[in-house]
Amino acid sequence: MDEERPVESRTVWHYDGEMLQTRNDRIASERPFTLELDGEEFATIVCTPTDLEDLTFGFLASEGVIRTAAEVIGLAVDPHRGLAQVRLLHPERGRSLDHSKRFIGSCCGKGRQFYFRSDVRTAKTILSRRTITPAQCIGLIRQLQDGSDLFRETGGVHNAALCSPDRLLVCRTDIGRHNALDKVYGHCLRERLSMKDKVIAFSGRVSSEVLLKTSKMGVGTLLSKSAPTDLALELADELGITVVGFIRGSSFNVYSHPERIAEQTGD
Amino acid sequence: MDEERPVESRTVWHYDGEMLQTRNDRIASERPFTLELDGEEFATIVCTPTDLEDLTFGFLASEGVIRTAAEVIGLAVDPHRGLAQVRLLHPERGRSLDHSKRFIGSCCGKGRQFYFRSDVRTAKTILSRRTITPAQCIGLIRQLQDGSDLFRETGGVHNAALCSPDRLLVCRTDIGRHNALDKVYGHCLRERLSMKDKVIAFSGRVSSEVLLKTSKMGVGTLLSKSAPTDLALELADELGITVVGFIRGSSFNVYSHPERIAEQTGD
Repeated sequence: MDEERPVESRTVWHYDGEMLQTRNDRIASERPFTLELDGEEFATIVCTPTDLEDLTFGFLASEGVIRTAAEVIGLAVDPHRGLAQVRLLHPERGRSLDHSKRFIGSCCGKGRQFYFRSDVRTAKTILSRRTITPAQCIGLIRQLQDGSDLFRETGGVHNAALCSPDRLLVCRTDIGRHNALDKVYGHCLRERLSMKDKVIAFSGRVSSEVLLKTSKMGVGTLLSKSAPTDLALELADELGITVVGFIRGSSFNVYSHPERIAEQTGD
Repeated sequence: MDEERPVESRTVWHYDGEMLQTRNDRIASERPFTLELDGEEFATIVCTPTDLEDLTFGFLASEGVIRTAAEVIGLAVDPHRGLAQVRLLHPERGRSLDHSKRFIGSCCGKGRQFYFRSDVRTAKTILSRRTITPAQCIGLIRQLQDGSDLFRETGGVHNAALCSPDRLLVCRTDIGRHNALDKVYGHCLRERLSMKDKVIAFSGRVSSEVLLKTSKMGVGTLLSKSAPTDLALELADELGITVVGFIRGSSFNVYSHPERIAEQTGD
């Protein structure tokens, strides 16, 4: 696919503590991207204009519109217009207006803290017994940071990667935290890569939406250098996901299901 | 209003480089918040459950549903259910489904890079000639960081403030970058505070959406410790907004309209 560039060049005025001087700088690209399902506008998001097919599949799976890549029977992506035209095997799933409706009901009690109907359908409890060592947690986040040229250049993007305990398998970048994860998810669906017993390494904050995406992907361990929210951790408790946050230097916090962090790996 | 707490306490397992030990930690709260306009569900967002009236007014103004606080003729916020029930002076504005539809048309040419119809209606070009000194830019970001107990405690929130060149006037916090700005915007609308000739200090990345909110508020200078995107800067060029980013220590970058950065303040 003929893609737009993830970085643009621009003249900026740099202040060094004494005076303003022009210089060239590299700025992260941001583009609107509209998904049309069988001719109807479904959603418009802004994103880094790379890996747009992956983003399309991952976004639709996250929203509960598809479960497998085979449910997309036609896809035309036009990166210049920022448009994906999708044909679905089950067009009625894209037409439901329910997908973004809040699920107010048992969620106000002690049950699952879902707030969208589509999450109730697609989030799943993780039973994986695969463990990971503290050194591997620290190593994966270091690999994620080392690998990100775009972040070092622009300071303005997030990274997400599907990993084995020892290395990054699929890594994607976006200005949007959720898009970075959706690109990884979409790539795995398209390539039919197993996500079971894998680990996600993530540069951003762990919100409820990030946690729910992890659950939909079927991944049991989520590593981040940032902080989680309390709603994400309630969901993690219940959906069986190990959340490791604040991975910085040689220390970190385990926020849920610590049984997957062990000095000996195994499954 | 009886609000929920912005921070929760939780037992976590801390790894210090040698072993896992439990300790108490403070975690940022995240709650779903649904806005109903005249009985119809309009949107559900997740947010820090504080200043929910401010958030309601700011969100509706950002979406182009209201322009003044007087256009909200009834508001009942229930923080426990995460629900705002709004009655509008012009109910038809809340019913338009156009608000999130992409504006594909002249935006693909050389014209304004808007992508939502509501932005075309509400974004405005800023003509303010108020200037600010480099030392004031640095001082405001320092005040923003010093003032944020919640960030220091949890590492998981963003801050936005409306400022004079010398000090923060209104400061709001949220786990969502956009919500923090909407809370400031909503407070100013409710209190009829003038935003003209003011400055916004912001902890987060400057995306197109952040830039458009600044324009809707009528503010000409946006300060951030983070990076901007290229789409945000195209909009800033055209809407007359000075974007100052990467404010760290005693240095920063000016990305657009540098004429508002001057050693002597004035208007």
